[in-house]
Amino acid sequence: MDLALVHARSGRPSPNPHVGAVIVKNNELVATGHHERAGGEHAETAAVRAAGERAAGGTLYVTLEPCNHHGRTPPCTDAIIASKVVRVVIGCLDPNPHVDGGGIAELEKAGIKVTLGVREAQCRTQILPWSKHVTTGLPYVSLKLALSLDGRIATRSGASKWVTGPDARAKVHHLRSRSDAVAVGIGTAVADDPHLTVRDAPGDSPLRVVFDTNLRLVPGSRLAQTAREIPTLVVCGPEAGEGPEEALANLGVECVRIPLSTEGRLDVVAALRMLAQRGVVTMLVEGGAELAGSFLAQRLADELHAFIAPILLGPRGRPGAVDWAGPDTPQQAPRIRTPSWELVGEDAYVHGQIVYPE
Amino acid sequence: MDLALVHARSGRPSPNPHVGAVIVKNNELVATGHHERAGGEHAETAAVRAAGERAAGGTLYVTLEPCNHHGRTPPCTDAIIASKVVRVVIGCLDPNPHVDGGGIAELEKAGIKVTLGVREAQCRTQILPWSKHVTTGLPYVSLKLALSLDGRIATRSGASKWVTGPDARAKVHHLRSRSDAVAVGIGTAVADDPHLTVRDAPGDSPLRVVFDTNLRLVPGSRLAQTAREIPTLVVCGPEAGEGPEEALANLGVECVRIPLSTEGRLDVVAALRMLAQRGVVTMLVEGGAELAGSFLAQRLADELHAFIAPILLGPRGRPGAVDWAGPDTPQQAPRIRTPSWELVGEDAYVHGQIVYPE
Repeated sequence: MDLALVHARSGRPSPNPHVGAVIVKNNELVATGHHERAGGEHAETAAVRAAGERAAGGTLYVTLEPCNHHGRTPPCTDAIIASKVVRVVIGCLDPNPHVDGGGIAELEKAGIKVTLGVREAQCRTQILPWSKHVTTGLPYVSLKLALSLDGRIATRSGASKWVTGPDARAKVHHLRSRSDAVAVGIGTAVADDPHLTVRDAPGDSPLRVVFDTNLRLVPGSRLAQTAREIPTLVVCGPEAGEGPEEALANLGVECVRIPLSTEGRLDVVAALRMLAQRGVVTMLVEGGAELAGSFLAQRLADELHAFIAPILLGPRGRPGAVDWAGPDTPQQAPRIRTPSWELVGEDAYVHGQIVYPE
Repeated sequence: MDLALVHARSGRPSPNPHVGAVIVKNNELVATGHHERAGGEHAETAAVRAAGERAAGGTLYVTLEPCNHHGRTPPCTDAIIASKVVRVVIGCLDPNPHVDGGGIAELEKAGIKVTLGVREAQCRTQILPWSKHVTTGLPYVSLKLALSLDGRIATRSGASKWVTGPDARAKVHHLRSRSDAVAVGIGTAVADDPHLTVRDAPGDSPLRVVFDTNLRLVPGSRLAQTAREIPTLVVCGPEAGEGPEEALANLGVECVRIPLSTEGRLDVVAALRMLAQRGVVTMLVEGGAELAGSFLAQRLADELHAFIAPILLGPRGRPGAVDWAGPDTPQQAPRIRTPSWELVGEDAYVHGQIVYPE
């Protein structure tokens, strides 16, 4: 199962989950497989195909319960039964309400011995983003922050280039390359005129999303100017001007109108639901403070990635890295569960799932 | 010399420097010594005494140039010459203007071969606090910060217990035990009612200093109530009330009046000079934001120790960990030179010398 977990990391199957599979017979490795691309072969089918006739009598290890339904590919249970493996070891159940144990029932009906729950926690963690997506209809949201020691993203004059070092920036490009979408607020889009592309890492650039209530994104911005090459979507309010929308549309930027919340801000949940429907399973929110704050305040941020530079920028100018009311006591603060600290150049990098106590 | 550097770390010689010495003869270690306590034997004298007659014909390695003057002990050069070592290897010159090469001249006059500058950078770093003290008449100041990821020391309600974890707090006690004094501003003294003692680490509690312009420290505070056991000093302005001073004095708290700056705040340089005259070579400033900010703004903080908890406290309530104007751009920000990051429980700990670009 450990080997299956390693193989599961390969590929970019979004909006499908990462899955890995291994076939073993007489204590020997017969074949491996993983889910490479959405619409492509599933992990267990890939392993079965690679094993060919050698699968017969063997054991299949797979990180996620095999599907028993027709999606873009035929049911995996059919291929497994046809392969004549005698035992299937499964990491965790498929959280998808359409499956949820159905795959196991199918295999057992065919006389295959099934064991469930081996390395279950690790297998569950691996499909966390997809689980959230399939059970809630919302993307899994990661929050990225690049801060000084005193929690600032810019100086009093607004200067923000560069707080963290080049190694940290390369790491951010890695994070982008593993996401289906990256998002910024319009304040950041205007102030930084960012590319939001993957340059310092292998992999494709994700969909770029700007939260922009009144369509302030100008046609001359880098985001708009490169929208023909890299998909770019602006989420705006129902009252945003039609002129700006047309100008942006002419450059290839898609504008999607969503309702406002009672406070007159973009309804972030509605925006996330729209993005999930378009296949966005994982989204990296890159700031600024207000957008990051509204995700935190509504407990919509699932994971935190913070890069901390060993400098002090002072308290003036901007409210800080995240602008939201904040907790009453340190015990009620959103925190990273089992934080993983790393050194990235001269900066520290901490990441992990966010928990919201109370 | 590496062994001498290790021995130099022992003892608590303040207000004298850390010094280590080693005597070697025929490639064999004959004796070691270090400066244990102010007023006690110097490192080279200790090594010479331990070696006895075996020193004759040997080589003495010492991290700092031996003194040639009468202080609380007789000149070390006399003892070295009497020991009949034939060679002395010295890490770095004594920055004390009274010595500065004089010790070397004395040894050479007696026919001893002298080599200077072995592991010079490390030897200089080891006596950095003392060098500053002896050359500027000011203590070496370390700034301690305990922060959330977003640079906060408290929540919007003012709650600050506990931002960082128990391991970080134990480390702070170690830092205190290695300092001659710890300092806080009156705001922190009132809000937290701290002990500022060494409890979670071996070693004695340092002098406790409160920066308190108008003598707001109340006799009921923990600092005042324990002043008979642990020396406690309050730095106040010239106009502070005599009633409060008497009440504090009755509990054993010493109040020292210093001038105010043109902005009506305590003249921090004058306070530091007064403390240095009382033998404070190293001082740990533990907050709050205003005191930390005034040390940073005046470039009086030499070293930074920051503990960062993987939580987010939000921007409301307090201005942040350090309250000062701050730099124009990230490039001009005070930063830690070659930062040393460590994991302390679930928190990160970074420390190192502060440099002030521009």
